[in-house]
Amino acid sequence: MSTARGSARRPGTEAAPLTERSARVVVARKLTRRAGREKAGAFLAEGAQAVREALVAHRAGTAGLREAFTTAAFAERQPELVADLLDGDVRVHEVTERAAASLSETVTPQGVVTVCDRLDVPVSAALAVRPPLVAVLVGITDPGNAGTVLRVADAAGAGAVVFAGDSVDPFNGKAVRASTGSLFHLPIARERDVDSVLAACRDAGLSPLGADGHAAHDLAASEARALLGRPTAWVFGSEAHGLPDELVARLDSTVRVPIYGQAESLNLATAAAVCLYASAREQREPGGVRG
Amino acid sequence: MSTARGSARRPGTEAAPLTERSARVVVARKLTRRAGREKAGAFLAEGAQAVREALVAHRAGTAGLREAFTTAAFAERQPELVADLLDGDVRVHEVTERAAASLSETVTPQGVVTVCDRLDVPVSAALAVRPPLVAVLVGITDPGNAGTVLRVADAAGAGAVVFAGDSVDPFNGKAVRASTGSLFHLPIARERDVDSVLAACRDAGLSPLGADGHAAHDLAASEARALLGRPTAWVFGSEAHGLPDELVARLDSTVRVPIYGQAESLNLATAAAVCLYASAREQREPGGVRG
Repeated sequence: MSTARGSARRPGTEAAPLTERSARVVVARKLTRRAGREKAGAFLAEGAQAVREALVAHRAGTAGLREAFTTAAFAERQPELVADLLDGDVRVHEVTERAAASLSETVTPQGVVTVCDRLDVPVSAALAVRPPLVAVLVGITDPGNAGTVLRVADAAGAGAVVFAGDSVDPFNGKAVRASTGSLFHLPIARERDVDSVLAACRDAGLSPLGADGHAAHDLAASEARALLGRPTAWVFGSEAHGLPDELVARLDSTVRVPIYGQAESLNLATAAAVCLYASAREQREPGGVRG
Repeated sequence: MSTARGSARRPGTEAAPLTERSARVVVARKLTRRAGREKAGAFLAEGAQAVREALVAHRAGTAGLREAFTTAAFAERQPELVADLLDGDVRVHEVTERAAASLSETVTPQGVVTVCDRLDVPVSAALAVRPPLVAVLVGITDPGNAGTVLRVADAAGAGAVVFAGDSVDPFNGKAVRASTGSLFHLPIARERDVDSVLAACRDAGLSPLGADGHAAHDLAASEARALLGRPTAWVFGSEAHGLPDELVARLDSTVRVPIYGQAESLNLATAAAVCLYASAREQREPGGVRG
């Protein structure tokens, strides 16, 4: 029923697959809910790409992969990935299509899902190597946005992402999927106390800079460009409410993304993309921290 | 049952509300499907913000608002919007909660939806004022992405958005919602024939520039910056496949968004945000077309 390295059995060849009522599947299914993830200290990574990234991180020692579930159809389609999991000392269980669907948060499950140790670390640990660019998300609620911002932060070369305040769980299935593997690429911290996040950023040499539609200077202004070349912790507020005034007062400065047309604002992920890439660029100019 | 300007009746006060089986509601519900939208030349804009933007455009003569449906609860919550619709000579029909839900593509309908004339114009008309920045989307399939790119293009000051090739319908309910009103702000064109779109762009003085992960120069390279200051039609490919090689060969040049971390790519909307804002910036620098 289950297979480990060195075993002669491969998923889909012999024992009956686990059903949605099998104890292992029932236990894993609890990870589709936040309370279950918190209790088990684990989350689900679904789909071939996420599983591949999880395995790379597992081998590099930056992620813990507890076990994997695959359907016979998936194992037949992608035998190399199953072999790689087994070679990585990951137990692989064959499951029925229905069991796979019960572990999935997508409409068309791919038939592969892994149970991974939660990846978040304390803020101080996430900032230990003093990265020059970090994203801090305060009170964001949409899991798709959380994952997309993780992906953007990774692409822009940020060294960590901090989920501060009352934010969505970055290990929510939708967030994991939207991150397209990026959650395995850079340190993630969760810290409810926003003040302690700001203090940790300053301790790591980062200047907290808020993205705020009401800021005096826009990203392209010379005043803003001078700020952007420094080590920066970008602070982004919630999709609906942006940054609260009392938080803005505790930041070093704020900058707005210029709106040249009639749109009222950008959404969180696109605003984060513009801001983080503006920093990535200025930090690489002469005079910037990476220049 | 229905109310027009000058009538003493206001929705929610007298006649029985329309149900999901009422002819008007049945006809409007066809607009939740692409075939229905094509046939009727109309689409649904849902929620208070979208309806407000539709009404502004209707009054400015850039959109046609055929009729509106509201629940009694919505009319009670936002009587000013209902009054504004009536003042704008828009017929407003009270509908039951169930009828409103049948016209909605959201989980929690707000209770207001309008029937609008389709807004798309021929490519040549969309480019008639020779805007210096335009977005061309080729073969994109996700409606949420379509709407988010519309919003980003609007924010970055683009003068038009062209849906080229076999692209999703920008008047799909999810696209309308993701655009948060931006589809009423700038000309939208749909044209299956990509070559004719490129020809129209060149006729309007725009240089077609592709966003392509395999391009030789990245956005921050000096070669790219020189390109970005010129009148530009940014060409973006599909979420899954990017720009096909044969299309790249027909563009003036391509540029890639630099990936500084381990992410494989950006998603469409965030890539478009970075590219369009890079153009917006260079075009406003000395030597740029708006400099």
